[in-house]
Amino acid sequence: MSTALFIGRFQPFHLGHLSVIKKAISENDRLFIGIGSTEQNFRPANPFTAGERFQMIEAALDEAKIERTKYAIIPIRNINNYALWPRHVAMHLPPFEKIYTGSETVKNLYENENLTRKNPYEIINVAKELKISSTQIRELILTGGKWEILVPPATAEFIAKLGGINRLKAVQEADK
Amino acid sequence: MSTALFIGRFQPFHLGHLSVIKKAISENDRLFIGIGSTEQNFRPANPFTAGERFQMIEAALDEAKIERTKYAIIPIRNINNYALWPRHVAMHLPPFEKIYTGSETVKNLYENENLTRKNPYEIINVAKELKISSTQIRELILTGGKWEILVPPATAEFIAKLGGINRLKAVQEADK
Amino acid sequence: MSTALFIGRFQPFHLGHLSVIKKAISENDRLFIGIGSTEQNFRPANPFTAGERFQMIEAALDEAKIERTKYAIIPIRNINNYALWPRHVAMHLPPFEKIYTGSETVKNLYENENLTRKNPYEIINVAKELKISSTQIRELILTGGKWEILVPPATAEFIAKLGGINRLKAVQEADK
Amino acid sequence: MSTALFIGRFQPFHLGHLSVIKKAISENDRLFIGIGSTEQNFRPANPFTAGERFQMIEAALDEAKIERTKYAIIPIRNINNYALWPRHVAMHLPPFEKIYTGSETVKNLYENENLTRKNPYEIINVAKELKISSTQIRELILTGGKWEILVPPATAEFIAKLGGINRLKAVQEADK
Amino acid sequence: MSTALFIGRFQPFHLGHLSVIKKAISENDRLFIGIGSTEQNFRPANPFTAGERFQMIEAALDEAKIERTKYAIIPIRNINNYALWPRHVAMHLPPFEKIYTGSETVKNLYENENLTRKNPYEIINVAKELKISSTQIRELILTGGKWEILVPPATAEFIAKLGGINRLKAVQEADK
Amino acid sequence: MSTALFIGRFQPFHLGHLSVIKKAISENDRLFIGIGSTEQNFRPANPFTAGERFQMIEAALDEAKIERTKYAIIPIRNINNYALWPRHVAMHLPPFEKIYTGSETVKNLYENENLTRKNPYEIINVAKELKISSTQIRELILTGGKWEILVPPATAEFIAKLGGINRLKAVQEADK
Repeated sequence: MSTALFIGRFQPFHLGHLSVIKKAISENDRLFIGIGSTEQNFRPANPFTAGERFQMIEAALDEAKIERTKYAIIPIRNINNYALWPRHVAMHLPPFEKIYTGSETVKNLYENENLTRKNPYEIINVAKELKISSTQIRELILTGGKWEILVPPATAEFIAKLGGINRLKAVQEADK
Repeated sequence: MSTALFIGRFQPFHLGHLSVIKKAISENDRLFIGIGSTEQNFRPANPFTAGERFQMIEAALDEAKIERTKYAIIPIRNINNYALWPRHVAMHLPPFEKIYTGSETVKNLYENENLTRKNPYEIINVAKELKISSTQIRELILTGGKWEILVPPATAEFIAKLGGINRLKAVQEADK
Repeated sequence: MSTALFIGRFQPFHLGHLSVIKKAISENDRLFIGIGSTEQNFRPANPFTAGERFQMIEAALDEAKIERTKYAIIPIRNINNYALWPRHVAMHLPPFEKIYTGSETVKNLYENENLTRKNPYEIINVAKELKISSTQIRELILTGGKWEILVPPATAEFIAKLGGINRLKAVQEADK
Repeated sequence: MSTALFIGRFQPFHLGHLSVIKKAISENDRLFIGIGSTEQNFRPANPFTAGERFQMIEAALDEAKIERTKYAIIPIRNINNYALWPRHVAMHLPPFEKIYTGSETVKNLYENENLTRKNPYEIINVAKELKISSTQIRELILTGGKWEILVPPATAEFIAKLGGINRLKAVQEADK
Repeated sequence: MSTALFIGRFQPFHLGHLSVIKKAISENDRLFIGIGSTEQNFRPANPFTAGERFQMIEAALDEAKIERTKYAIIPIRNINNYALWPRHVAMHLPPFEKIYTGSETVKNLYENENLTRKNPYEIINVAKELKISSTQIRELILTGGKWEILVPPATAEFIAKLGGINRLKAVQEADK
Repeated sequence: MSTALFIGRFQPFHLGHLSVIKKAISENDRLFIGIGSTEQNFRPANPFTAGERFQMIEAALDEAKIERTKYAIIPIRNINNYALWPRHVAMHLPPFEKIYTGSETVKNLYENENLTRKNPYEIINVAKELKISSTQIRELILTGGKWEILVPPATAEFIAKLGGINRLKAVQEADK
């Protein structure tokens, strides 16, 4: 049985994330979807709480008719000490063999981790699937651009209902 | 749709936990199973990592033929400031209305939380179902008692395979 | 009896802050003045310690002949998890019903908090009174501008005596 | 002008604390009352939040007709690194010269601090005034003893109204 | 070239520690001496600061005429998440292949670490050399027993000069 | 006997650092080299772990034929509360009288510290020796510039062998 991890901050979840999840589920028996930086929210780069991101992902995967038995969503807080990060992440979930990532940093952290591992993680680069970025979507929201076409309809609806657009604007201020 | 939370440390998972989960699943559309104190492990009162506890729970629920679509397992780190704990927990998962607990402390924390809430949580006392305690099981393991009959077979097997009995004995020492 | 909170970082205290405090004291029986981010000091955006800010505020309010029985100053450390922030703040002081703020972020945090509260906080927008910003004053200090006219005389005197101007310049450096 | 600090956890505030505060106020122009371990609450040794302890103290001092201009109450979180504790405390409030304490540990920490200080703190041992202890009161509450005679009437009333007796019993449990 | 780590809390350093260090230096080209739990001090089980323990160790090794080129002393703070501890420790110093320990817990943590490592650490059990414990020495100090014969003369002298005996007694108190 | 501290982040170690160390060793009996921000690594401004920086420094000092008995390398984690920083640093190592620094911030922190100290630290400004900065070297690495001539040959070799150039590029990404 093959098991994989795809970890992101999902601020917000978008079509690139959905595409990676579809790919990873088609290539593995089970996928863990890690929600990173759970402790960050109501900030410019991290507007949504872990629980809100959980709902966003689940709503989008339900909409895409992806069976819930195929994946589990795991909230994981961040740590500053990135050299320990792959181990910190691994500590939160059952064993897995593959990591899907579009981030050069995450790729580098797991390559470093692999140097000392008996059974190295298989690192699958999904940068191509992740051409859309959450940063870009947050900027489109702030500037009144067409962000909705970059996220699953269920995510757009969730953000709207939550008052997410107003929140993003509110938390831009420099001085709290 | 009714949603509930059952949160514990599951050090280890036992038949009392299983009985609460069965009850909560029969009474709700969905159950979140919170693994508390994720950051604690390899210590006398918290021998297992969050990931190991995730596996223990899932193996036991699979064995009990409980469908995975009925529940989601959510690792949640502890915080010292208990007055904030119910809000800290809520921040990690979708909204829920009921909390199942056998702990007087947790009951008291949610009663305090309810004082200021528009829609108070329904608190369901499952102390009766939780007559077995993880503390008691850890003591039986240390003293060579019959602990296996107090946990689901899948949990007993998982602990044995993991070298959990040896770990419990090793981490009793006072001075690290 | 009506009680209110006005919370800021006061880096440094200025005439806008004083104006809000006068207004809040005239509209309430008691005012709590929260000093936020107590753990931050000797940094570009947070040059002064919590104790120094306490002295700055008290000196200015004494100078303005505001009776000490009308208010209490409460140092409150920051937390990263902003969704918990209103509760974290509330945990440090007696109950209050109103929050005076000029910050869109703080306003948004309390609006979010109000969604689940039986008795929502009254949020009083004092952005108009806070047209001066501490950021602007710190920049004037660094560039040799006329910052003294934007703060109460007692504050200007306190900063000068403390060597605050030199400190602000010293802590601008990128690499500690 | 002479300024002093009296710091405690006040779990709960009792007649010994009141007696020290009266003495310190009679001997100084101003007293800072530090509430220590603000982050601890709903636990066996720390049942009350910082805000609740603030109210307890203020109610008792009002009852004792001590003017609010004579003192200020300062919540201060704890740090593990006790060698830094006197500096951590000092960072939260205006300068002071005297510390009133009944604790051998606190006395020792300030003696250690004094070794490197140009103007050493005056350490005033009030162990005699503090023969009652909060630990003893918490035990009396749990065992149904006569605890009310050891605290100011206003404190007893506050604890009763808060449901504090029930809370103390609830939080005794070993396993949350 | 062979490199080893010996890590302890050294509260205080004793003849057992000295004996392990002599053995490890004779068996390796270089020894790292890790001072654990650097953030703990002025507490019953951890009376001395990291810097004081550094001095204690160095004075004893100088006295034993062990060359300073043979070892390096590395202060390392503790983390709660023990599953990450071996990696956290490794992050502080150059690579090493062997770990000398008398602790069953530390042994178990490195055995767990070895499960996933390409080149497992060699774990050398020095429980036999560590029959004396720091706990026992702290108790002898508190009860007026003959603790000096269990530590190197230089350590006994350092503790006396520091006022360490008085500190140990002061920090026993329950309530700070 | 005179003892000094030179503290830096050494991201990476360069010829300016080496020059300060030579000067400090020639002027003192012993030098402590503090590695600051040990918990930071694999980030744009802090690419290397504490252990890697330890190796970088030692390799360069060996190459420069500086005897290991003249200095000790001490990893020290950062704290946010900079007003406590000089005390936090001091807590990790034996007493010292002089601090060598090229940073205006560090100079300011120690000047502030000196205000209350019986025996003030001697602060030696080595800004002149530190005209090269690590920031500049990291930028040269990223842009393919001639960074190797700004660091000791042993450091350049260590970074190359480690894959440090690739790491610096990987960790530039905004979104992890």
